[in-house]
Amino acid sequence: MKKNALYAQSGGVTAVINATAGALILEAKKSNKIGKVFAAKNGILGALREDLIDTSKESKNSLLSLRYRPGGIFGSCRFKLKDIDASEKEYKRLIEVFKAHNIGYFFYNGGNDSADTAFKVSQISKKLNYPIQCIAIPKTVDNDLVLTDSCPGFGSAAKYIATSILEASLDVQSMSETSTKVFILEVMGRHAGWMAASSALARTKKDDAPHIILLPEIIFDEKKFLLEVKNIIKKKGFCVIVVSEGVKNNKGKFLSESNTKDAFGHAQLGGIAPYIADLINKKLKIKNHWAVADYLQRSASHIASRVDLDHAEAVGSHAIKFALSGMNGVMPIIIRSKTKKYNWKIEAAPLSKIANLEKKLPTNFISSNKMNVTNKAIDYLRPLIQGETATPYKNGIPVLKDFNLVKVKKKLSKWEI
Amino acid sequence: MKKNALYAQSGGVTAVINATAGALILEAKKSNKIGKVFAAKNGILGALREDLIDTSKESKNSLLSLRYRPGGIFGSCRFKLKDIDASEKEYKRLIEVFKAHNIGYFFYNGGNDSADTAFKVSQISKKLNYPIQCIAIPKTVDNDLVLTDSCPGFGSAAKYIATSILEASLDVQSMSETSTKVFILEVMGRHAGWMAASSALARTKKDDAPHIILLPEIIFDEKKFLLEVKNIIKKKGFCVIVVSEGVKNNKGKFLSESNTKDAFGHAQLGGIAPYIADLINKKLKIKNHWAVADYLQRSASHIASRVDLDHAEAVGSHAIKFALSGMNGVMPIIIRSKTKKYNWKIEAAPLSKIANLEKKLPTNFISSNKMNVTNKAIDYLRPLIQGETATPYKNGIPVLKDFNLVKVKKKLSKWEI
Repeated sequence: MKKNALYAQSGGVTAVINATAGALILEAKKSNKIGKVFAAKNGILGALREDLIDTSKESKNSLLSLRYRPGGIFGSCRFKLKDIDASEKEYKRLIEVFKAHNIGYFFYNGGNDSADTAFKVSQISKKLNYPIQCIAIPKTVDNDLVLTDSCPGFGSAAKYIATSILEASLDVQSMSETSTKVFILEVMGRHAGWMAASSALARTKKDDAPHIILLPEIIFDEKKFLLEVKNIIKKKGFCVIVVSEGVKNNKGKFLSESNTKDAFGHAQLGGIAPYIADLINKKLKIKNHWAVADYLQRSASHIASRVDLDHAEAVGSHAIKFALSGMNGVMPIIIRSKTKKYNWKIEAAPLSKIANLEKKLPTNFISSNKMNVTNKAIDYLRPLIQGETATPYKNGIPVLKDFNLVKVKKKLSKWEI
Repeated sequence: MKKNALYAQSGGVTAVINATAGALILEAKKSNKIGKVFAAKNGILGALREDLIDTSKESKNSLLSLRYRPGGIFGSCRFKLKDIDASEKEYKRLIEVFKAHNIGYFFYNGGNDSADTAFKVSQISKKLNYPIQCIAIPKTVDNDLVLTDSCPGFGSAAKYIATSILEASLDVQSMSETSTKVFILEVMGRHAGWMAASSALARTKKDDAPHIILLPEIIFDEKKFLLEVKNIIKKKGFCVIVVSEGVKNNKGKFLSESNTKDAFGHAQLGGIAPYIADLINKKLKIKNHWAVADYLQRSASHIASRVDLDHAEAVGSHAIKFALSGMNGVMPIIIRSKTKKYNWKIEAAPLSKIANLEKKLPTNFISSNKMNVTNKAIDYLRPLIQGETATPYKNGIPVLKDFNLVKVKKKLSKWEI
């Protein structure tokens, strides 16, 4: 009897994580070597609770439509499994669920935390003697997984950011004589500046906007920053700034938290864009506007990158291929060719070398004034936002197909997290 | 000798104001009855300073590319002319510039302030005895001009907001069990809630996100709002809120200004989304995320509405037609047919009946709980976001054609504003 597979989504979602899910399910079907693909509701929680969705109840059209659907269709979660020794109960429960539903393959689609969970699950075979093949599938707008050249989800966020900053820059520029002179966009990236860096892709000429990029890898230097803003306004008439949410001051505190209390003793409202805006108001007295992209940047499938979508689908289908070839404890990663023209392929990498590690912007991607990125960064980033996708629209908005999301009948007793 | 025309952009720009400019210039050329079309640099300021751009130096391809280019290609400004009696000097200067460059037609592309300026300029013929035909052309994301059924620029902002909130809602929903349960998007609209209302277009089913829409027409009721958030989370597991920047409390103060001082005596950082987020943190202790769309919503030409783009081009070409038919002091406005299927045409309306007036959301567009919009609102809004445009991309970002922006030789003495 063919083994079934379990697929789960984990951590923050992206514009293309559903594309990975769709490609994986369709590849499993095509292979004819896998029974059913179950999807865990809300990530690993669904696996523990035996909350499983039978993806065979979805039409092929619905599965194909996942390439254009942001969010996580089966639900995701933030929940990290401890080591097998520390929480054997959870692992034994997972095995119970796997056994009850004849699951031989486990696919975990997430970032570095999830790679860690997947790595632990992959050890079940050895440590707890249940034969499971566990494959982690990369996904993160943060682009901070090691070994892989890039992470599915990032390219689409990067294309959103580059396009948005290009458009907003034209807006600011046209009004700058008598109105707003500074525009600030806050983007995600708590520890690594990949998303902020990608705003540089908005440029056609070297001194086009954005003029300043504040990266979490660099300690914020208020004086130098304000001087640079003034210089740019003098030269260009306006100044466009992209700031990563994770920028810290020289005391190691996030800028967004550095004014901690207001007059009522309340914690200060968050957001680093308003912090920078406030600084420019007070110190330079220059009219400015600010935007915070937040979830918009990681869910904007209407402006997904074609290359990113291809990556997302390729890691999904390769996860199935790797599992069927007998692999365990690996992740399909993206390998960039050394050719001038961008080419890529998928290879398998061991989770032991990926879990819990974080890839920051390399030093040679950061400009000498520390407030911008180098051509090397742009050369790396540019291929990742190439090409557009064909989001279908109806009634003026992207179409969402219906999903049945049929639950698999439970066979075990209830599980309390 | 044919008279020349002067075109100027005014106030906040939109995703499609350049489309209006392009259509106007091409229509003037086609008519063969107008000499050159000059564009004022930075709106009315350019007209006063004799800072004129010769649009005949641009290629047809560049002019056609304006339909996909956000911002204001010739620059815009915030500068309101006083009455002719109060500042005769300015009007006399305008006449000097018109005379020096043989200008017989003045086209002013803006919102209600600009309609006022255009109305005053249209009176020059009578009051100061210089023959000028002045046509105001509508443009505003605020959609608050009277008489016209809708305003060019609004439909594209509405499509951006509806699409963004749809995408972000899918993101929040998929994580809501263990992570963020509330998402707040702040949109523009200081006095009128058209943009906030357009977020309702994200819905396919009645109780889809967004679940709460806070309009500037309605005084904020904190207690009722928090109760509604709690109820929605209970029912749906998550809650998506769209809030207009102009929402006020019962003292008539903008919410974004209501916490005026922080611990250092500084003015509180602006933004109503962080204000609402803070409220939910403190009163409900529920994890939330917030975004502020700011300029992104009015410059997102990559997701412009086809209908809006058609409107923008039609008001541009009709401005020329109306001028050539001898009209003065009018605005081309959009008239919606009474048929079930959406149809529209352009007619001329007198500026005296438009200038300085503001159209708010009608009462029957606002739901009985005051935190949402009615089907009547949706029926009005839906046609305005129909259809997509074909933004050309290169290198992963929208293409910007080069413009020559050749200055016209000055003939007059310098003018100090």
